[in-house]
Amino acid sequence: MSEKDKLVSQSENFNEWYNSLVLRADLADYGPARGTMIVKPYGWALWENLQQALDRRFKATGVQNAGFPMFIPMSFLQKEAKHVEGFAPELAVVTHGGGEALAEPLVVRPTSETIIGHTYANWVQSYRDLPILINLWNSVVRWEKRTKLFLRTLEFYWQEGHTAHATAAEAAERTQMMLDVYADFALNEAAVPVIPGEKSEMERFAGADQTLTIEAMMGDGKALQSGTSHNLGQNFAKAFDITYLDRNNEIQHCWTTSWGLSARFIGAIIMTHGDDHGLVLPPRLAPIQTVIIPIYRKDKDKNMVLEAVERINQELIAAGIRVKVDDRENLTPGYKYNDWELRGVPTRVEVGPRDVAKNSVALARRDISGRDGKQFVSQDGLVQAVQELLVEIQQNLLDKATKFRDENTFDVDNYDDFKTAVKTGFARVWWDGTNAEETQVKEDAKATIRCFPFEQPEGTGTCFFTGRPANKVAIFGRAY
Amino acid sequence: MSEKDKLVSQSENFNEWYNSLVLRADLADYGPARGTMIVKPYGWALWENLQQALDRRFKATGVQNAGFPMFIPMSFLQKEAKHVEGFAPELAVVTHGGGEALAEPLVVRPTSETIIGHTYANWVQSYRDLPILINLWNSVVRWEKRTKLFLRTLEFYWQEGHTAHATAAEAAERTQMMLDVYADFALNEAAVPVIPGEKSEMERFAGADQTLTIEAMMGDGKALQSGTSHNLGQNFAKAFDITYLDRNNEIQHCWTTSWGLSARFIGAIIMTHGDDHGLVLPPRLAPIQTVIIPIYRKDKDKNMVLEAVERINQELIAAGIRVKVDDRENLTPGYKYNDWELRGVPTRVEVGPRDVAKNSVALARRDISGRDGKQFVSQDGLVQAVQELLVEIQQNLLDKATKFRDENTFDVDNYDDFKTAVKTGFARVWWDGTNAEETQVKEDAKATIRCFPFEQPEGTGTCFFTGRPANKVAIFGRAY
Repeated sequence: MSEKDKLVSQSENFNEWYNSLVLRADLADYGPARGTMIVKPYGWALWENLQQALDRRFKATGVQNAGFPMFIPMSFLQKEAKHVEGFAPELAVVTHGGGEALAEPLVVRPTSETIIGHTYANWVQSYRDLPILINLWNSVVRWEKRTKLFLRTLEFYWQEGHTAHATAAEAAERTQMMLDVYADFALNEAAVPVIPGEKSEMERFAGADQTLTIEAMMGDGKALQSGTSHNLGQNFAKAFDITYLDRNNEIQHCWTTSWGLSARFIGAIIMTHGDDHGLVLPPRLAPIQTVIIPIYRKDKDKNMVLEAVERINQELIAAGIRVKVDDRENLTPGYKYNDWELRGVPTRVEVGPRDVAKNSVALARRDISGRDGKQFVSQDGLVQAVQELLVEIQQNLLDKATKFRDENTFDVDNYDDFKTAVKTGFARVWWDGTNAEETQVKEDAKATIRCFPFEQPEGTGTCFFTGRPANKVAIFGRAY
Repeated sequence: MSEKDKLVSQSENFNEWYNSLVLRADLADYGPARGTMIVKPYGWALWENLQQALDRRFKATGVQNAGFPMFIPMSFLQKEAKHVEGFAPELAVVTHGGGEALAEPLVVRPTSETIIGHTYANWVQSYRDLPILINLWNSVVRWEKRTKLFLRTLEFYWQEGHTAHATAAEAAERTQMMLDVYADFALNEAAVPVIPGEKSEMERFAGADQTLTIEAMMGDGKALQSGTSHNLGQNFAKAFDITYLDRNNEIQHCWTTSWGLSARFIGAIIMTHGDDHGLVLPPRLAPIQTVIIPIYRKDKDKNMVLEAVERINQELIAAGIRVKVDDRENLTPGYKYNDWELRGVPTRVEVGPRDVAKNSVALARRDISGRDGKQFVSQDGLVQAVQELLVEIQQNLLDKATKFRDENTFDVDNYDDFKTAVKTGFARVWWDGTNAEETQVKEDAKATIRCFPFEQPEGTGTCFFTGRPANKVAIFGRAY
């Protein structure tokens, strides 16, 4: 990589760093229609790993996958008053099909609560049909004005779970359970130290009684909502008449939930762990965990080196490590190092003629640059060394990100300090404001309530903004 | 299941048998917008198993997955003349987004060759960028007038592969390779004995130089096109200007291919193996391979039986068998037998008090009804017995379907016999007709050339329709 190809640094322009990195690391590209995204094979492999890590967690809680149509009759959206208010401005509308104007326009789903409501109403008759626990892996469309790859695109990839229950308690339990699944995934798979909590009324999903969220701090101190779980109460059950006969043969409305996590989480991973050299992917999700670079100058060394590389490659594959050999002939080792650093591969194995002679290799880690991150390891112990290093890197990424988040989370008790805090990180404050006061803060300081964290201090305090007594603490931040 | 709940028999009304079975077996449901489909959890689990079996075969040939937008600018479709002619009548058109009329309408992809062509043109510069081997798992939309669950719906789930190559030979090789992958999948995973071959010019994909296909015979003797692989030559490369600099620094157009297999294949499985009792799923793809039914009348037996059932359940799970315990309390064992037969579960384990006492179970197979399909097995040898039985069932399904197909494929040499043949099966004939003559047969006898099978007899013959000398044999059939 030549000097002119270097990424702009994070401190210079975080936004430009992100935008160019997504393209340069071959994660994604812009689609031809405004605001659409092409996810390239490297980005898609990362998404597949996220999907699998989530999917096995969903299934362990009894959830099953299904497929629902992307087209929803326009009239469905209008059945839940708050829902239509929230989504109407963002709809993509199909007015013509098969060369003819449609009698009723169809919307491309912005989310599926309405078509799920309509369908569950048909499926549920008795308490024996409950609960219904369904998840959809699909894409949805929201007509966003300002788009950004992975974070906000017209069409985006996600999963949306939709459950129906006989009681309010079961729905509440499921809402919390799925938020816990998201938090566990974020911490233990992505090494992203999210803050789990509840949204304010203003920030709730359109049509929900309660929205739970995981919020992450990006490398520029801004917040990224990374997954949400909604308790929909009986709002959609009443709008779509989802009823069941209970054990006493009486008709009851169901209680429903929905919960979603999208490929925007790839943005969270990029902006949580990335550095001026490029991506830094958590080993558990990285499409490639180890890249092997053969090094030779003379033709006589080539066979010897490639033989050792292939043997090592097979050993690592047999151990279940996701490995790639970079045997491109037209590129220097130095170029390749930079290239795979840019792509965030957690570990690198370098094999040259002297390594072969000494039965060793150089093993470098992506999260620590230069000589400090490099060790020489016997080929006999390489598999174990790589496995241990991957675990160590995973932990180190979580530790670093947690430290960064904590250092940039400020407990403040007045508005001036608040405004300073949210310029570089989160403000953790006692809050007792109204919706109007929350809006005032948003317009003035550009910061919103990210959540009321589940982890609350004991006792009570004084609202930093209103001066009134307050019984809960909120996390404010500037959001993506 | 009471008498009135019985399926209509295949011989009585094959079409109604299929339509009601898809609903009754909980595979799918109708969506609210005309022609759309909801794939229910049981159907989706089957689709996931198909996906995995295909996906690992694709990846073994070097193919990577990616994600492309569902929205394509209308103008793209018009760039390849034959392509737009083929797809224009079937398009769904988005004319409004975010509350405003769009300057250029967007179509919801009916297939992605055009957006792929546009994108590959950007991605490919040099021969070093080739080949590109990408697959998409997504859904596409075609405005069909007459729809049928899984076989023909407005939106359907599939995979579409898109490759670009430096030479005609490589593209031809890839076209054949992917057809071979489909045939291998059909035979060895789905036990569907497909006939691989080439489509006639009339039946080619819109914009292809060559279309290869696998054709299956359904239980009513009709043909189902089950997967296709297209050699697009340089048609799309020229329409979208996909060019590369070769080793001599000269600009060349690429050669491209595309290939697809859809959830319509679930229809092929249903109509190849199903019988009057319901689905018969091939063990390798069945979401549930074994269902365990606990049997007890008295409360005192219940614990004993359920204890044995749980032990057996765990042993089968540990052996990697996909197992389900049906412990519903409100239903009789007989009802459950019928219920899981309807759903096509390959094997059933029955555990009653006497079985527990004798340390045995009854093991029944779905593909052979009644006492002939039932054996008593020691609990100690059950895992092995189930594993062997699943292999045996898989083979038996393929053998039965192959026999049925062969018995209903007729070598005929005159038009009268031809018309009789295609009423109940396939006609295998020497063919030397023109496109006009092919159309004549289609309109008159309702039969089309399913393919020119790769397996051809030696020598030459006489065209059954024109009486002219012919050097190839075609398979004709009535198609879904």
